Amino acid sequence: MNKNRPQILLTPGPLTTSAATKEAMLRDWGSRDADFIAITARVRERLLALAGAVGTHACVPLQGSGTFAVEATLGTLVPAGAAGKLLVLINGAYGRRMARICDTLGRAYVSYETPEDVPPTGAEVANILAADSAITHVAAVHCETTSGILNPLEDIAAATADAGRALIVDAMSTFGALSIEAGEVRFAALTASANKCLEGVPGVGFAIIETSALAAAEGNAPSLSLDLHDQWRVMEDTGQWRFTPPTHVVAALDQALAEHQAEGGIEARFARYSRNCRVLVDGLRHIGFETFLPDELQAPIIVTVRMPHDPNFAFERLYDLLHADGIVIYPGSVTAEPTFRIGCIGRIGEDDMKRTLAAIAAALKQMGIGEDGLAPAE
Amino acid sequence: MNKNRPQILLTPGPLTTSAATKEAMLRDWGSRDADFIAITARVRERLLALAGAVGTHACVPLQGSGTFAVEATLGTLVPAGAAGKLLVLINGAYGRRMARICDTLGRAYVSYETPEDVPPTGAEVANILAADSAITHVAAVHCETTSGILNPLEDIAAATADAGRALIVDAMSTFGALSIEAGEVRFAALTASANKCLEGVPGVGFAIIETSALAAAEGNAPSLSLDLHDQWRVMEDTGQWRFTPPTHVVAALDQALAEHQAEGGIEARFARYSRNCRVLVDGLRHIGFETFLPDELQAPIIVTVRMPHDPNFAFERLYDLLHADGIVIYPGSVTAEPTFRIGCIGRIGEDDMKRTLAAIAAALKQMGIGEDGLAPAE
Repeated sequence: MNKNRPQILLTPGPLTTSAATKEAMLRDWGSRDADFIAITARVRERLLALAGAVGTHACVPLQGSGTFAVEATLGTLVPAGAAGKLLVLINGAYGRRMARICDTLGRAYVSYETPEDVPPTGAEVANILAADSAITHVAAVHCETTSGILNPLEDIAAATADAGRALIVDAMSTFGALSIEAGEVRFAALTASANKCLEGVPGVGFAIIETSALAAAEGNAPSLSLDLHDQWRVMEDTGQWRFTPPTHVVAALDQALAEHQAEGGIEARFARYSRNCRVLVDGLRHIGFETFLPDELQAPIIVTVRMPHDPNFAFERLYDLLHADGIVIYPGSVTAEPTFRIGCIGRIGEDDMKRTLAAIAAALKQMGIGEDGLAPAE
Repeated sequence: MNKNRPQILLTPGPLTTSAATKEAMLRDWGSRDADFIAITARVRERLLALAGAVGTHACVPLQGSGTFAVEATLGTLVPAGAAGKLLVLINGAYGRRMARICDTLGRAYVSYETPEDVPPTGAEVANILAADSAITHVAAVHCETTSGILNPLEDIAAATADAGRALIVDAMSTFGALSIEAGEVRFAALTASANKCLEGVPGVGFAIIETSALAAAEGNAPSLSLDLHDQWRVMEDTGQWRFTPPTHVVAALDQALAEHQAEGGIEARFARYSRNCRVLVDGLRHIGFETFLPDELQAPIIVTVRMPHDPNFAFERLYDLLHADGIVIYPGSVTAEPTFRIGCIGRIGEDDMKRTLAAIAAALKQMGIGEDGLAPAE
C-alpha cells in the first residue's frame, strides 16, 4: 500500500468513509443511556426523511449486514402459509438471495428471472400479478450490484400498486444517492444499510416500513432477532434497541448522515457518483475495456467490466497491482460471464477515479500490454 | 459529563474499551481483501484458543448482538421436530430469552426455572435428563447478568455429558474473564460477544462449536442470515464472511484480543475484575446498600443492589448524578424485586470503582441522606 495516502475501496461496500465518520467511533456509549437514545432517534428520523416517508412509514434499524435487514423484512411482512406469497424479481445475486431466503423461511414465492443485463418491465410485473391472485407482495432490487444494473423501480412500483399488492424494495446500494420518495414510488418496505451510499461503516441495516404494515405483522416473524415488528414496538416504546446495538457503528452513521446533508443531500450525492461513474466508464473504454452494461442501464454505483481476452491480461495481477497502489476493487466475478467490478461510491471523487484509471493503465503496461491498449474481444 | 475524563460505562455492556481498541476503527477495510481475511482468521484462532478448543471446535463469528449468536446457535444445532429437544435452565432474563427463541423457532423444549438467586445443581439436571430421554441438548447461562449470579457450569456440563446430551453455553458475560476449557467443561457450543469481557466494541458475536456438531447441522437453521453451518462452511472455504461483516468492529476485536493477551490472558482479567467487584461490593455495603446475591454466588461481572427503602433515595436521581459525573450505570431494574446494577467489567480498574463509590456517596448526600448512610431495610 502506498504509505502517502490512505487506501480507497472501489467495491460494492464496505466503502471508503470520511475521517470524521470514523472518528465518531472514538467514544463508548451506554446503549440504554439518554445520549445514545437521542442518536438512535435522530438517525431514524433522518433516514425516514430521506425516503420522503415521514408520517406514513417507520424506520426500523437492525444489527447486522444488509442481508439481515432483507431477511427480517421478508420474514416480518410476508405471512406464512397461504396468507402470503411473494413475487421475486431476479436479475442477479441479490434477487436470487431473496428467493433463497424464502426457501429457508418456508415462505411461498414465485420468481421472475431476466438475464443479468435485462431489467424486468412494469408490464411484465402487471401480467404476472394479473395471472396469480395469490401473490401478496413483490420484491425488487433497485440497483442489482451483481452487474450494476438499474431496475425500473417506478414502473415496478406502479404495476404493483395498481394490482393492489405490496412492494418490498431492496435499495441497499442506492439509498441516499438515488431518490426514492415514498409519496411517488409506493412501497410497503424498503431496506438498505449504513455502509453504501450513506457512507457509514458496516454493522447496521434498516428497513423503512409502512406503519400499517408493521402494525399488522405481529407474530409473523420466524425469528426473534430478526423480528422487525418487535424491534419497532420496543423502539417506539422505549427509544432503545431490544438487544445490544453496535453503538459505535450507529454513532458513525449519525455523523455520515450529517455529512450527507451538508453535501447537499441525495441530489448532490447522485451528482458526485454520476461524475465518478462517467469518468470511470469513459476512461475504461479509452483503455480498451468493454463495460457489461449499456449506458442507459448503468446505475452510478458500480461498473462491471467484461474480462478482456488479451492473452497478456491476468485479473489477479491487476487486483494485486492496484492493491499495491492503495486501490481495492472487488476481487472476482459474480456475473454469469467472466467480469470484474469497480465501484463509484463512497467518500471518493473524480480525482480518485482518474488516479485509478492511471493505475490500471500502468498495471496493463506491467503486464506487457502496450500503447495500443487491450487486444479487441474476438 | 465531566469534561476532564472520559465517561466510564458500568453496565452489562457495551463497556468501556481502550483507546487503542477504538483507534483500530480509524481505517476502512475491503471485506473480501486479503488484509481483512487475515484479521478474521486471527480473531477466530485466538477465540478458539481462549476456549481451549483448538482441534475439536470451530469459531463461527456472526454479525449482530450476542442474542443473534445465541439464536443462531440454537437454530443451527437443535433440529426441528422430534429429532431435537432442549432443556433450558432459567434463573433470569437470558435463560428466559432462550426459551422465547425456542418458542419463536418452533423448537421443542422444556425449561427448568429456579429463583433469580438460586443456581440449578448438577443433580437436578441429571434427574431431569434421566426422566426425559427426548431431551437432546441442554442450554445454560454461565453468568446470568440479570442478577450477576454464577451458575455451576462444571456441574451442569458433567451431568449433561454423563447423560450423553449436548451442552450449549451462553457465556456472553464471562468469556475471556472466567476460564472455560473445552477439554474440562464439555460443551457442544459456547456463545459470546465482542463487547463484554473481551473489551471489544459491540456489533459481532461468535459461537465456538464442535466441528462434528457443525458438520451434522446442515439444513437445520430456519434462517439464512443466522445459519452457522453455512457461515462456517463458507468461512472455511474462502476465509470470507458470507455477508458484509462489520469490518471496523472486527478490527477492534482483533486489537482487544491482542490487549487481552498482553494483560496476561483470562487469569489476569479475572483478577482485575475480581478486584473491581470486591472494592465495589465492600464499598456499597459500607455505604449501607445490600447486594442481591451472597458473595459465594456473585460472579465478578455485575453487582445487583437491592433498591433501598430510605424515603430520601430516588434511583433516577442517583443515575443522573452519576451520569453528570461521567459514570453510566444500568438504568433500571431487571430482577423480579426492585434492584439496580453496577458493572465491574470493561477497561476499568480499582480506581474507577473507588471514584464510583465516592460519587455514589456524594449523590446520597445530595439526596439528603446523611453521615449515617442509608436507613436500614425494614
